[in-house]
Amino acid sequence: MADYQAPLADMRFLLHQVFDAPALWQRLPSLAERIDAETADAILEEAARLTAERIAPLNRNADEQGCQLQQGQVRTPDGFIAAWRAWAEGGWIGLGGEPEYGGMGMPKVLSAQVEEMLNSACLAFALYPMLTSGAALAIATHASDALKALYLPRLASGEWAGAMCLTEPHAGTDLGLLRTRAEPQDDGSFCITGTKIFITGGEHDLAENIVHLVLARLPDAPDGNRGISMFLVPKRLVTAAGELGERNALSCGSLEHKMGIKGSATCVMNFDGARGYLVGQANKGLAAMFTMMNYERLGVGIQGLAAGERSWQTARAYAAERLQGRAPQGAENPQRAADPIIVHPDVRRMLMTMKALTEGGRAFSTYVGLQLDLARFAEDAQERARAEALVALLTPVAKAFLTDLGLETTLHGQQVLGGHGYIREWGQEQLVRDCRITQIYEGTNGIQALDLLGRKVVGSEGRLYRVFADEVRDYLASGAPELQEFGTALGAVLDLLDELTDWLIAESGADPREIGAASVEYLHLMGYTAYAYLWARMAGAAQRSSAQGMHAGKLATARFFYARLLPRVWSLAAAVRAGCASLYALEAADFVDLAH
Amino acid sequence: MADYQAPLADMRFLLHQVFDAPALWQRLPSLAERIDAETADAILEEAARLTAERIAPLNRNADEQGCQLQQGQVRTPDGFIAAWRAWAEGGWIGLGGEPEYGGMGMPKVLSAQVEEMLNSACLAFALYPMLTSGAALAIATHASDALKALYLPRLASGEWAGAMCLTEPHAGTDLGLLRTRAEPQDDGSFCITGTKIFITGGEHDLAENIVHLVLARLPDAPDGNRGISMFLVPKRLVTAAGELGERNALSCGSLEHKMGIKGSATCVMNFDGARGYLVGQANKGLAAMFTMMNYERLGVGIQGLAAGERSWQTARAYAAERLQGRAPQGAENPQRAADPIIVHPDVRRMLMTMKALTEGGRAFSTYVGLQLDLARFAEDAQERARAEALVALLTPVAKAFLTDLGLETTLHGQQVLGGHGYIREWGQEQLVRDCRITQIYEGTNGIQALDLLGRKVVGSEGRLYRVFADEVRDYLASGAPELQEFGTALGAVLDLLDELTDWLIAESGADPREIGAASVEYLHLMGYTAYAYLWARMAGAAQRSSAQGMHAGKLATARFFYARLLPRVWSLAAAVRAGCASLYALEAADFVDLAH
Repeated sequence: MADYQAPLADMRFLLHQVFDAPALWQRLPSLAERIDAETADAILEEAARLTAERIAPLNRNADEQGCQLQQGQVRTPDGFIAAWRAWAEGGWIGLGGEPEYGGMGMPKVLSAQVEEMLNSACLAFALYPMLTSGAALAIATHASDALKALYLPRLASGEWAGAMCLTEPHAGTDLGLLRTRAEPQDDGSFCITGTKIFITGGEHDLAENIVHLVLARLPDAPDGNRGISMFLVPKRLVTAAGELGERNALSCGSLEHKMGIKGSATCVMNFDGARGYLVGQANKGLAAMFTMMNYERLGVGIQGLAAGERSWQTARAYAAERLQGRAPQGAENPQRAADPIIVHPDVRRMLMTMKALTEGGRAFSTYVGLQLDLARFAEDAQERARAEALVALLTPVAKAFLTDLGLETTLHGQQVLGGHGYIREWGQEQLVRDCRITQIYEGTNGIQALDLLGRKVVGSEGRLYRVFADEVRDYLASGAPELQEFGTALGAVLDLLDELTDWLIAESGADPREIGAASVEYLHLMGYTAYAYLWARMAGAAQRSSAQGMHAGKLATARFFYARLLPRVWSLAAAVRAGCASLYALEAADFVDLAH
Repeated sequence: MADYQAPLADMRFLLHQVFDAPALWQRLPSLAERIDAETADAILEEAARLTAERIAPLNRNADEQGCQLQQGQVRTPDGFIAAWRAWAEGGWIGLGGEPEYGGMGMPKVLSAQVEEMLNSACLAFALYPMLTSGAALAIATHASDALKALYLPRLASGEWAGAMCLTEPHAGTDLGLLRTRAEPQDDGSFCITGTKIFITGGEHDLAENIVHLVLARLPDAPDGNRGISMFLVPKRLVTAAGELGERNALSCGSLEHKMGIKGSATCVMNFDGARGYLVGQANKGLAAMFTMMNYERLGVGIQGLAAGERSWQTARAYAAERLQGRAPQGAENPQRAADPIIVHPDVRRMLMTMKALTEGGRAFSTYVGLQLDLARFAEDAQERARAEALVALLTPVAKAFLTDLGLETTLHGQQVLGGHGYIREWGQEQLVRDCRITQIYEGTNGIQALDLLGRKVVGSEGRLYRVFADEVRDYLASGAPELQEFGTALGAVLDLLDELTDWLIAESGADPREIGAASVEYLHLMGYTAYAYLWARMAGAAQRSSAQGMHAGKLATARFFYARLLPRVWSLAAAVRAGCASLYALEAADFVDLAH
């Protein structure tokens, strides 16, 4: 398997040339003291070294060995414990956490790039630190000071790990159906009883304690989403002095056998009267869980990007070396028996597609990371509000579009290798299997699309959408030199998106089914529009830059994206315009009955 | 896992209502005596029973247990030996084989439907009989009468199995590079030496002998494709009297670890001076291998269809039962805690897409099967020539398009189940993994696209294409009542394909790279055009039919296909028109260098 090397040059190009993140950090008081260009580069280089040397080599064995459950204990694959220690000791788990509780307080735009590296190196491993950071974020945002002081430093240091317990057998997308109960105790704690499934890192051997955030119902809580509360339920109880006490009444009942991410323990968790502590307000658990979701969902989007990046590294190296056939216009390598397959136009098409989608995806995730930073750190309320609007709008796009295109990318990367892509040896098939979950968990991509079109676009009557559209329109009016080449096409796509947005807001008033009938295609339309916007900006930044080599590549790839990939919007638009009628011509019962 | 039930009603609808195959059989003397409507229905019913009861239940264990290599012997998964016997004893391996050598001589249009059932039931198992039928076909077409008499009856009966040995480590798509040697012996046989990889069913425990068809080079053979000959190399030598003799000098060196089809033994085969017999003419081995490829390639296309069908059966049953959320327009199931997910428009979209692609694919594979029958059995030379032209043109489309859409279908089928689609339990993730190989083996789908556009369309200067286009245009001019609804859209797509075909023939004269730059999108364009043609015909047949239920479903699905899926052609056309320039803006070396 080709080794993984973090795409540092591209990451720096985005941070420095395209977005000038250091100037922004300088401007934001809470970041100015923590981070500058040199520190950022040093952080990225160290993360690149660690992921390449310590994490990436674990990836294949993680898949083959998987996790084992023995007498209630989960054993992670060989090397995970040492990798976890190395990652924790470097302070990487707390990279974005609050400095006041042991975190490093780094901006998301930077930690997102580190997350990409970690996920490229080993997606299954990356889930453990990601869940831990996510749990820490939820606790930092909602828990009492006492809980924060007791738990956050140990999560930031990696002494303890985190897990999220939402899904139940009958309650996945529809969490309102969940049944896990929380009974108040005299001492102010709660007694938690119920079964959770699909719990990532619910049990493992990486840390001495696991802090579960569990959604459950209080007695007499209202039905549905408004009756859900969040509880902190540690695997081992913690004394007031912060020492580990007895085992709590929770256990891992079994591990799921999955298509991929086999090094990640996906657990059935049984809570049998476990002691828990309320986090945030009673009956507001779902809202509390979702305030951290924007961070988590971007992280899952980045997983799709990361799998694509690793597949792209292997595919381009293979295509440059594998000798097979001759170039259409005549041998390019006449002294050898065949030419490298990169001479073939169809192989080029797959490689350029991988490059355009991966580098476009990295630009997009970096852009969304920047908005998350502005929403969190900007001093000016209006600037914060604008960034919050973009985050709300674009987070479901980032989660779903990055992972949908991540799967497309890994499938191309497998196809480039032919039969060698289907066997384990080169690792390409594992990336497809690992990437596939990213379209499903943390809210399926269909749910993300409903969130985008239903809650965000229609729900705000287009207000959130216009924040994004205005930014692109301002750019189109900016007179940037690259717009001479790309402006017309970008403007046409934006006009199309405007038109469909207005039409959907109007149509869905008459028939709410129009939202779900159009949502997935609409999300993709917005994704391609965002990539087109960012590819034009990247081409501009490349043209303005003094560095030749890589930047010629940016311009060529921008042209490829506009010529070959952006036209996908026209078919998507036709599907949107078709409306919901053809989806409901058959009765539900017909789907099964008519087949026999 | 939901049980598999063959889609008999849809198969009968195609054979009887859409294509009226029994009338054709009546007209063709060599078929009239062998098959009629009643016999065909009886054959399909028996195949449906056998695949549902005996083969489908093996599928999951086949994946989990896989094949094991121990001391040179391959052990297939539990139940495969008994299933092979049942399949062989029913005469199914020889279903399409020559009656003169133990086959049943059934038309391809029928055996293709049986193949679909077998592959839906267990794709990994299906490969063993498929390879055996394929080897028998190659021997029947090219071998001497002595070899035919010795080998064909035992292959038709399943006493012996077949395998194809083409690929070598450095020679996959480019078979001209292969190095396996064949030295003539005094007794007229040949001594075969070399290593073959990716050999499906190269070694197993299903039959007492395995008949390998091996591509190799004679001494002083010309370089490249023109120096390849085909040899019959049995695992155990066969005496002139037809009795099994000593073990031949060939062995399985190892098994590949693959993404899927784990019940199929993918072998490295070592030929260490094995005795072989020339099949067909010296140095004409590739041509001999390819005469049977049209049958095999349709078979692989059908595998993609078959995986999609099984995924579709599970997805629709799950969607009708899984309760989660509420219908957008209000609860449809107010007495329960939630509605079945089939009420959601996005779930509908996935289900309707699966239905439209699967039933459209079955119509297409049946149509191509019909052309294969006409090419083989028609008395009239002109009718045969016309069918041969359609077979030549559409076989690469069937292989690549059916498998590309098969993967899309299985991915939808996995997504409908959410997290339950990612774990093993429901079987949906296995179908994705099993289906994925069909896009790669038997010539990657990229190679199929080159064959279509380069050899077939441009190579015939459009002659083969016009046979297909004329048929669709005749239909458009037929005044069939369904064309009032579908004629305009079908005509527009055909005009588009005409225009792009002419443009590509012209452009590729100036730059041969234009073929490979457009080929995959062009193949998809032709596939969607063919599906549109057949969906209109199916809608018409349904409208003319007296049976209500199922046929209302056909009309609704045709409308869905035209509204939501056919518009994909517009984006494909834009990509074709973009030409090859953007693929070659970067130098080959830049792909690796610029990333660092």
